[in-house]
Amino acid sequence: MTTYNIALLAGDGIGPEVMKEAVKVLKLVEERNADVNFELNDVLFGAAAYFATGKAFPEETKAACDKADAILKGTIGLNHEDSKKIPVDEQPERGALLPLRRRYNTYANFRPVYLPKGLAHFSPLKESVVGEGIDIMLIRELVGGLYFGEKETGVDAEGRRYVREVLEYDEDQIRQIVRVGFEVSMKRKKIMHNIHKSNVLKSSVLWNEIVEEESKNFPEVEVVNILVDAAATYLCLKPTMFDVMVMENMFGDILSDQGGGILGSLGLMPSACKGPEKSYYEPSHGSAPDIAGKGIANPYSMIGSVALMLEMSFGMEKEAKNLWAAMQGVFEDGYSTSDLSKEGEANLVSTAEFGDLVCAKL
Amino acid sequence: MTTYNIALLAGDGIGPEVMKEAVKVLKLVEERNADVNFELNDVLFGAAAYFATGKAFPEETKAACDKADAILKGTIGLNHEDSKKIPVDEQPERGALLPLRRRYNTYANFRPVYLPKGLAHFSPLKESVVGEGIDIMLIRELVGGLYFGEKETGVDAEGRRYVREVLEYDEDQIRQIVRVGFEVSMKRKKIMHNIHKSNVLKSSVLWNEIVEEESKNFPEVEVVNILVDAAATYLCLKPTMFDVMVMENMFGDILSDQGGGILGSLGLMPSACKGPEKSYYEPSHGSAPDIAGKGIANPYSMIGSVALMLEMSFGMEKEAKNLWAAMQGVFEDGYSTSDLSKEGEANLVSTAEFGDLVCAKL
Ligand SMILES: CC(C)[C@H](C(=O)O)[C@@H](O)C(=O)O
Ligand SMILES: CC(C)[C@H](C(=O)O)[C@@H](O)C(=O)O
Repeated sequence: MTTYNIALLAGDGIGPEVMKEAVKVLKLVEERNADVNFELNDVLFGAAAYFATGKAFPEETKAACDKADAILKGTIGLNHEDSKKIPVDEQPERGALLPLRRRYNTYANFRPVYLPKGLAHFSPLKESVVGEGIDIMLIRELVGGLYFGEKETGVDAEGRRYVREVLEYDEDQIRQIVRVGFEVSMKRKKIMHNIHKSNVLKSSVLWNEIVEEESKNFPEVEVVNILVDAAATYLCLKPTMFDVMVMENMFGDILSDQGGGILGSLGLMPSACKGPEKSYYEPSHGSAPDIAGKGIANPYSMIGSVALMLEMSFGMEKEAKNLWAAMQGVFEDGYSTSDLSKEGEANLVSTAEFGDLVCAKL
Repeated sequence: MTTYNIALLAGDGIGPEVMKEAVKVLKLVEERNADVNFELNDVLFGAAAYFATGKAFPEETKAACDKADAILKGTIGLNHEDSKKIPVDEQPERGALLPLRRRYNTYANFRPVYLPKGLAHFSPLKESVVGEGIDIMLIRELVGGLYFGEKETGVDAEGRRYVREVLEYDEDQIRQIVRVGFEVSMKRKKIMHNIHKSNVLKSSVLWNEIVEEESKNFPEVEVVNILVDAAATYLCLKPTMFDVMVMENMFGDILSDQGGGILGSLGLMPSACKGPEKSYYEPSHGSAPDIAGKGIANPYSMIGSVALMLEMSFGMEKEAKNLWAAMQGVFEDGYSTSDLSKEGEANLVSTAEFGDLVCAKL
């Protein structure tokens, strides 16, 4: 019997509702696998934690994460107005999410931009553009760059407010993520798109040097260098040209959400954040305060993150595969939630019913 | 009789071919307007200039630009491999384009993401998403941020190569571009989307403060604050929700090219770069070395940049309008170039023929 301890960080907004469905699925997987036991540990995180304890990432949560085998995170964040009620440095992104990433050095963020043909109707792209389906593994560096560089704000000699923040990378940071890109490419189509902006950014010049150096260790992988702006064009125009994409933190933030756009919703994009020792899993979408509590948020991205956890942290590949198939099957049967679909386009069900249908398929 | 001196910076790749068509159009406009005289001054710029003179932005070109009433730029840049033949700091982007922007402080970059219904077939988006057409004025700050901040590369104490570059803004820089956003919004739908990343970047925190302060001077304009990543999602999912978008330099680089993606091509996106005293105009697309010299590049974006120049630098609004109508008319008549369309989808013509058709329509 193997026991996996999982810290559950439901978070804010729709986080708790989609997390409930993730737990439902986890319990079922546990039931079906006599030799596996999930120890679930619910802890506070984000704005919810701040209002309860004064800290967005409280000590108790840190302790729970430290001892966990994997961390499953919901969503965090408040709307623009409400977030002003929290001091800037305790706001859930700066006070909880970025520290979580830093604490476990989860440098490799996997965001599958994946749309099988059967789900193509969700996409804003023409059928002819989606073709046989979109299947991109977008890999984002998650603990460097502008996100974690020094920041300085002040007033200059002329009395003007100013701000300076630093984008920084060293070769080790770049090398470790670039290697992940190559390794994943080896298991897929052996074509890696390297996203950069070397015609302006010196960080991209160094980045590209490392890509070139590392490519010698992966001679079978064809590297295609593409400017981040051109990548943004082609991700709309011809998404099927991409298989593995690797890029620095901020580029990854923007392009992965564009990826959610071409899928039809960030609700269709789970994600994995891997560190050397510990990984955490989260939907790519936000906390959607406007629809929180209504039971209409689709749990696909959250349950997909469970699938990634089963596969990447627990080596339960078969269970992960079945879970993907079950989720897609529910959509293919014509069910959806009202955040993703309109009346008439699908048989609308609630968040909980969607979770039930996934379990039934399993 | 008014004489306008225009510096022509044809540049590299397809630059010279599309510039030829711009000149054709300019000559026709001149012919039709007895009281206007265009003095055209062809000068070297970009890689072409570097190989001829050792400088990507030679003194002679600077002098021509200094005395010009407006600058019309083609495209610059080489492909990834060829650009390695030029020292990093003389590469056309760092050695010519950025210095051009800095020299004339062209802080306001206008990139119309404009797709009238008649051109909707170019878009990779479904007809239902394009709806009555896309009409966004994307405004990008063009002379600040990461592009122009200090850059440092070196080797650290542990022998690792590293790079640090600074994203910086002061309140004046932000205020001047934000004001442009408000002013343009006042002439349009009075809704301005402010693109930021204040949950991570301190530069966005200051940016948003200035937007809030300036909004008091434009009480009629509704400001919608949206994270850059969410904007990337919605630019695919629901582009018709945007009217005016305002953002800092790097965000603008990426989102405007995504804008080109949803139009169907950067070839459909002209642009204007306005400074306090001088402005320059350029297509948003690159130099496309792979198709240079083949006569298949569409000159829409280049000729559209002429239209923007006529309107914004010379106050020739009627002529600009006619030019837009002529260009769109050519597409609506079913003509296109093979960089944009496939055999069978349109009546394929060359770059020069497309220019001729625009002139005929005029
Ligand atoms: C919430 C925010 C800090 C975060 C990021 O920018 O990384 C989110 O947008 C994401 O992509 O995971
Ligand atoms: C060529 C490059 C320096 C430029 C930029 O990044 O600004 C281009 O991509 C653009 O958008 O005008």
